[in-house]
Amino acid sequence: MAMKKKPVTGMKDILPAEMRVRDYVIGLIKETYRGFGFTPMETPCVEHIENLCSKQGGDNEKLIFKILKRGEKLNLETAQSEEDLVDSGLRYDLTVPLARYYSNNVSQLPTPFKALQVGSVWRADRPQKGRFRQFTQCDIDILGDPTNLAEIELILATTTLLGRLDFKNFKVRINDRAILRSMAAYSGFPEESYDKVFIILDKMDKIGLDGVRAELLESGFSEAGVEKYMGLFQAMEGKEDAVGALNDAMEGQLDAAAAKNLKTIMENVRETAVSEFDIVFDPTLVRGMSYYTGTIFEIEMAEFGSSVAGGGRYDKMIGRFTGNETCACGFSIGFERIITILLDRGFQVPDAGQKKAFLIEKGMPAGRLCQVLKEARDEREKGVQVLTVTMNKNKKFQKEQLAREGYTEFKEFFI
Amino acid sequence: MAMKKKPVTGMKDILPAEMRVRDYVIGLIKETYRGFGFTPMETPCVEHIENLCSKQGGDNEKLIFKILKRGEKLNLETAQSEEDLVDSGLRYDLTVPLARYYSNNVSQLPTPFKALQVGSVWRADRPQKGRFRQFTQCDIDILGDPTNLAEIELILATTTLLGRLDFKNFKVRINDRAILRSMAAYSGFPEESYDKVFIILDKMDKIGLDGVRAELLESGFSEAGVEKYMGLFQAMEGKEDAVGALNDAMEGQLDAAAAKNLKTIMENVRETAVSEFDIVFDPTLVRGMSYYTGTIFEIEMAEFGSSVAGGGRYDKMIGRFTGNETCACGFSIGFERIITILLDRGFQVPDAGQKKAFLIEKGMPAGRLCQVLKEARDEREKGVQVLTVTMNKNKKFQKEQLAREGYTEFKEFFI
Repeated sequence: MAMKKKPVTGMKDILPAEMRVRDYVIGLIKETYRGFGFTPMETPCVEHIENLCSKQGGDNEKLIFKILKRGEKLNLETAQSEEDLVDSGLRYDLTVPLARYYSNNVSQLPTPFKALQVGSVWRADRPQKGRFRQFTQCDIDILGDPTNLAEIELILATTTLLGRLDFKNFKVRINDRAILRSMAAYSGFPEESYDKVFIILDKMDKIGLDGVRAELLESGFSEAGVEKYMGLFQAMEGKEDAVGALNDAMEGQLDAAAAKNLKTIMENVRETAVSEFDIVFDPTLVRGMSYYTGTIFEIEMAEFGSSVAGGGRYDKMIGRFTGNETCACGFSIGFERIITILLDRGFQVPDAGQKKAFLIEKGMPAGRLCQVLKEARDEREKGVQVLTVTMNKNKKFQKEQLAREGYTEFKEFFI
Repeated sequence: MAMKKKPVTGMKDILPAEMRVRDYVIGLIKETYRGFGFTPMETPCVEHIENLCSKQGGDNEKLIFKILKRGEKLNLETAQSEEDLVDSGLRYDLTVPLARYYSNNVSQLPTPFKALQVGSVWRADRPQKGRFRQFTQCDIDILGDPTNLAEIELILATTTLLGRLDFKNFKVRINDRAILRSMAAYSGFPEESYDKVFIILDKMDKIGLDGVRAELLESGFSEAGVEKYMGLFQAMEGKEDAVGALNDAMEGQLDAAAAKNLKTIMENVRETAVSEFDIVFDPTLVRGMSYYTGTIFEIEMAEFGSSVAGGGRYDKMIGRFTGNETCACGFSIGFERIITILLDRGFQVPDAGQKKAFLIEKGMPAGRLCQVLKEARDEREKGVQVLTVTMNKNKKFQKEQLAREGYTEFKEFFI
């Protein structure tokens, strides 16, 4: 039977050129994050279906690749619905498995636990350009540290990594859910409609202040409230100390602890960072996931439009899963996005050493072959990458192919 | 809802200590094999169900984790059998996806193509100690090289890797399916029962010559044939040049090309290897997979019983899948087995640098915190791994935990 040649819908084969960049970036990620005391760990790709469908994953729960039960547990005749057929699924993120891992292994882990995960996740999203159904996520999380040292270290580690990848002049935007809430409260919006307000606010970068105003009014919020709310954003515009300006505008009703916390984080990050970037308070930053409880942050690069990393504090989520409240804060880089940017840029992996190709004529007698192999061995021992390969009939084409793979030196051996 | 804490049956969480060893070994694998001109590549973990069930995978096809169709493609009412419910599954090896990858991307790959794959595979095997349903495979394959340069390079690369992991005095056993066949033919066994003969022969290391003789007789093979067959093995016993002795015993009926080929491979490997090991002709080596067409080989370490690597030439398989005949030869190391051996041995990852922990008292004022972070930054820039962490109430226990994680130096910062 002939095989289906293409990968399954929405997934992709990784060719050697991209693989070189991916391997290099993963190596740099692990090295950089290890330098900050993060510990690599791994969970299985397959997770209990109950854990995946626990309402922590939002819309991602609609996109699960579900795995059929096996053996006598699978009963097609009596199955009433999908749930009767499956017992597990592929993970759609690394956060749900981290919560399970932490509760399963907590006695063997240090507190706080600084976790580093690089792994594939799967979502049965509508296939579209640049978005795949299997993709790599890269998360760092600090579990069990309630202080802002967690935020500071997460931001320093992530920005150091981006700097080492030669990204410059990016911007870290930071906010706090408590600030979002106190601004909404000051404006007189009812608490139960905060989420609705924030969903509209989240569009600020696309539709601007006037667009947000119009949508809020359309959604039935009072004109007085909307104007008061808009006034707060206007009061901050162009101000060096935006947090201070906001506090003034709110007549002291800004959440003081959250404001001080943000200032401390920003100051410490600015003072100790090694990469070139800005960190700014952004009162319009919302971040979608409802599980965030405090600080939220994102990294944006003007030249590439959307964000390349995002995270925040989620002090309640692990407890909801495990029954033991555990504060937590995480930062996730958009690994696939960064790879795409690097490939588009024509990024060259810093050379791991010289690459030589030895082309050997077919039918080389055993003794002569041995000489060639010894020469290859000696080069390899010196750290040179040596490809020993049978010479093709079309030698010129073969060398062109190899040049594309990064081989710069060719040596031919004839009978 | 409380979460299920344990991983799904038969899969495991990887704790930091094991993860360090795995990361180190994977790094060494990639570095060593790249030195031999192998190119990392990757396929999706999910594969078309038709490709997985194409009868190339032997018994593994019974162990597939199958993935449910999604959306309107899933119709529970009209589904008659399992096949109607699924469209894909998790790969059970890296060879089937390699065949698909090669046929899908051949125009963009060099010929010959030296592929390196490290990746997870899944088999719904009965769970047992040391065997997991998700595990890592590590394969190197050379596609498109009909010469024994392929075998020689595969064996050199694999043995170099094992040497770098400090394995010594292991043994590479090598045979050829053609030799197996010509020995069976010489003994007068009917061709259609060769596989039955080889399955019994494969038990030689467990049941010995007498056991094999008894089983062959029990299976109904003629006494004359069985004695002739046994005589060949006896003729080789203790002989330095076993291939020569076999040829003499077979009165010149040994497959001459295969015999010469084995000799060339063994000579070249012996002459150019950098690690300490033996390579020996083993006429009892069978290897289970029926897709092998020529040379077969295995690496065995006396102290660990079973084999730690295996492979061979499979010139027909890719063609059966893709319609274009492509010769191929591969070698797979038992990654999980090697990790288990290293962990049992108490293997210590060669230090990637110093590890210091900075314990910071809770409530550190912003300015002082900044000083601590700068000190950490400067150490990190010098390559030291620095964990900055909030000091716990039980500082002694915290330091003990961190010492287990490899932290050798502690510095405390008080308010």
